[in-house]
Amino acid sequence: MNKTQPARGMRDFLPADVRKRDYVINIIKEVYESYGFEPLETPAVENIETLTGKYGEEGNQLIFKILKRGEKLDVNDKELADLALRYDLTVPLARVVAQHKNDLPRFFKRYQIQPVWRADRPARGRFREFYQCDVDAIGSSSMIVEAELISAVSEILQKLGFDDFLIHTNHRKILTAILDTSGIPLSKHTDALVALDKVEKIGIEKVNEELINRGIESTSIDKLIIFMNGFFDKATELINSSVDGILTSKEKRKFYNESIIKIISDFIGKHREGLEGIQSLQQILEYSEYNKHIFVDVALARGLSYYTGAIMEIEAIDTDDNPSFAGSLGGGGRYDGLIGMFGKQQIPACGFSLGLERILVVMTERGMFPSELEKSAADVLVAVWNEVTIGESLKLAGQLRKQGLRVLVYPEADKLGKQFKYAAQIGVSFVCVLGESELAENKVTLKNMRTGEQETITIEKVKNRIAGK
Amino acid sequence: MNKTQPARGMRDFLPADVRKRDYVINIIKEVYESYGFEPLETPAVENIETLTGKYGEEGNQLIFKILKRGEKLDVNDKELADLALRYDLTVPLARVVAQHKNDLPRFFKRYQIQPVWRADRPARGRFREFYQCDVDAIGSSSMIVEAELISAVSEILQKLGFDDFLIHTNHRKILTAILDTSGIPLSKHTDALVALDKVEKIGIEKVNEELINRGIESTSIDKLIIFMNGFFDKATELINSSVDGILTSKEKRKFYNESIIKIISDFIGKHREGLEGIQSLQQILEYSEYNKHIFVDVALARGLSYYTGAIMEIEAIDTDDNPSFAGSLGGGGRYDGLIGMFGKQQIPACGFSLGLERILVVMTERGMFPSELEKSAADVLVAVWNEVTIGESLKLAGQLRKQGLRVLVYPEADKLGKQFKYAAQIGVSFVCVLGESELAENKVTLKNMRTGEQETITIEKVKNRIAGK
Repeated sequence: MNKTQPARGMRDFLPADVRKRDYVINIIKEVYESYGFEPLETPAVENIETLTGKYGEEGNQLIFKILKRGEKLDVNDKELADLALRYDLTVPLARVVAQHKNDLPRFFKRYQIQPVWRADRPARGRFREFYQCDVDAIGSSSMIVEAELISAVSEILQKLGFDDFLIHTNHRKILTAILDTSGIPLSKHTDALVALDKVEKIGIEKVNEELINRGIESTSIDKLIIFMNGFFDKATELINSSVDGILTSKEKRKFYNESIIKIISDFIGKHREGLEGIQSLQQILEYSEYNKHIFVDVALARGLSYYTGAIMEIEAIDTDDNPSFAGSLGGGGRYDGLIGMFGKQQIPACGFSLGLERILVVMTERGMFPSELEKSAADVLVAVWNEVTIGESLKLAGQLRKQGLRVLVYPEADKLGKQFKYAAQIGVSFVCVLGESELAENKVTLKNMRTGEQETITIEKVKNRIAGK
Repeated sequence: MNKTQPARGMRDFLPADVRKRDYVINIIKEVYESYGFEPLETPAVENIETLTGKYGEEGNQLIFKILKRGEKLDVNDKELADLALRYDLTVPLARVVAQHKNDLPRFFKRYQIQPVWRADRPARGRFREFYQCDVDAIGSSSMIVEAELISAVSEILQKLGFDDFLIHTNHRKILTAILDTSGIPLSKHTDALVALDKVEKIGIEKVNEELINRGIESTSIDKLIIFMNGFFDKATELINSSVDGILTSKEKRKFYNESIIKIISDFIGKHREGLEGIQSLQQILEYSEYNKHIFVDVALARGLSYYTGAIMEIEAIDTDDNPSFAGSLGGGGRYDGLIGMFGKQQIPACGFSLGLERILVVMTERGMFPSELEKSAADVLVAVWNEVTIGESLKLAGQLRKQGLRVLVYPEADKLGKQFKYAAQIGVSFVCVLGESELAENKVTLKNMRTGEQETITIEKVKNRIAGK
């Protein structure tokens, strides 16, 4: 006998799960379409060289590789695989933009909602197959793009019922300036960012240790840590000054963000790139003045190496009602260099990725799904009277479907009591019976399974009766 | 520089493609839901032993296998792969039904629309990644199931705009009886069916040759071929007797199917299984008396080894208007033994699979898509007057989206002429301009790109103007 579990870290989605997933996906699509983003789909399988070298060393090891087939497979070959499973939706997008440059509008705005696969160690909320909901705008360097992305993502989360979330925002050029000013050489910047990226999870002490282990000089580390501590102290002070711990008024948010930017300015001085980063952040804040979620966060680094400009990450806030979860629902940023890896020219790009699985986990924990999703398989079950009338029952089912009803036919000529019981079991609220007397009258008997009431009516009236009219 | 093509046999779907695919998928979903089928999704990746041995020898070789990872990978190991890509949607369904038996209703009706992967040689209309649209009813042996499946699939094709299609119908037990009666031993039945399955493609002569090559005795072959020729002659005679070559009246179709069943009866005599098969076919025909597409076809075998009862295949008919294509749009049948391979008990099952890619090919060739699908990315483009007013343009875009419009914001403070030109290029019919004078008046200027007309109106009126009111 075969095993019946899905593969490790993978999941089956039964009907109730699929309905919840589709509910979230449809809201995401609807909002993205309202911003003029268009749908794109790419294959699950890519040539292996399309993916390797794009996700850093750690990412490379998490790529699922597909064995060569037939005569191409030679176990003495160094390369056993020629294909691989999609690891994210950004690299395929860069490939598509380079490939179809002439068919796409100059400013290509696309969304893409598809699964990706990573050979990660499965954990709570972390799977080996999971959906990403990406949205990217290609072709413009303007901060209008960042502002629109942040606005679209905020609207999605609000429509899903989230209110308390933060969009942490930083800029890679600011990080570069901070590392330069701390005296960390360019060759160690990636190391420093990888360490810094963990500060939320492991705390500043451990980051300090990791920086030492990565061979960064202690005078530089001290300088960096003092700056970071200064940032954390200021942020805490500003947040505590707010009554509810969150900066609700437009003025308070503005003051918060300007205060943080001032700390950065004071530290980096006239660092050219740093000043560019600050200017970009200020533009994003200006264009998003009505968005209450954006907060400048110098500690946000985001691991992926392809970011070049603004970076963002969404945090669902832990509330008193919902203490069990806090964490990232998605993130994004500007990556002006990636498409050039596939094409002859550099094309600026900026995008955002929402983590469907995380969103579903939080919405499930917080009971955020509308009750309509808990619907049964059908509006009405058509019972089968006996072997001889099966054709008539099937015909009736067809007539009821034409009225717009979702209709199950009981698939066997069982006892009527058993058919009623089945309808009740699976939560179908009405049963239509078509016996000999009903056939003679050209009517049906409709039984309401909740009240137990039944009446014999014409077929035309069934839909209204089910709707409670 | 990296290659930009997708992997061999795989495809990127640009926005216009995705819209066509979604259009078809949504009609399929809608019809299946109206029959009480519920959505199921399974992972793209399965444990390799879940798939091997289920698709015959040829199928086994077409499975994409995933290389073991990290320490598990040992090139001296006989088994380099531990996972594989989903090859169809039926085997995963059987696994899910066995795994979740207690959570599923006794009669589980599910649809599943997901990609599958086969390492086949790519050809016109044949890809290595393609979508299947499956619908299956689990738990009942009644022919009500077959009749409902045929009805649902017919309704889908009609809603997509197909009218001329045949649903070839046969029964595995009838085939068994015919092979038995021809004197072909049970051990050679699979060989004989594989050969017979090709008759539409290669003709009866070549089937004869293949039967010889597969080591079947010539007296048996002769008997089988004579029977088959008798069937083809009769079918041709009956079809030619109809004025338009297709049997349009209910009576003519009934006479056709009864005549074919009589040929079978005469040949197989009192063969027990054969008579069961005939009875099942007769029930399906009786329950489907209003369906004009079903024709009994003794030459239909369907390669997959797991079928045990009725088998069906849809053929899109080549018409005078559309001579370029004829072929299978999908097929299905009863497989009462497959779920037992995963669970402790046998559970009867019957299903149908529609080939999305084939349907799309034919619909594209025949121009069957509604013109609304050729829509542009947005209803209106909001132009950007200058750097200073960007925030106001973004705010306007938000207000227009609240009216239900799909709104693009031009992502740079370019010359206005350039922004108009871009809107025209990408097919957006309206442009909203918010300059200093409009801002002062709290109005916008709306330009109709088709007529060139423009007028300055309040924001509230934009939606109606775009709708032509």
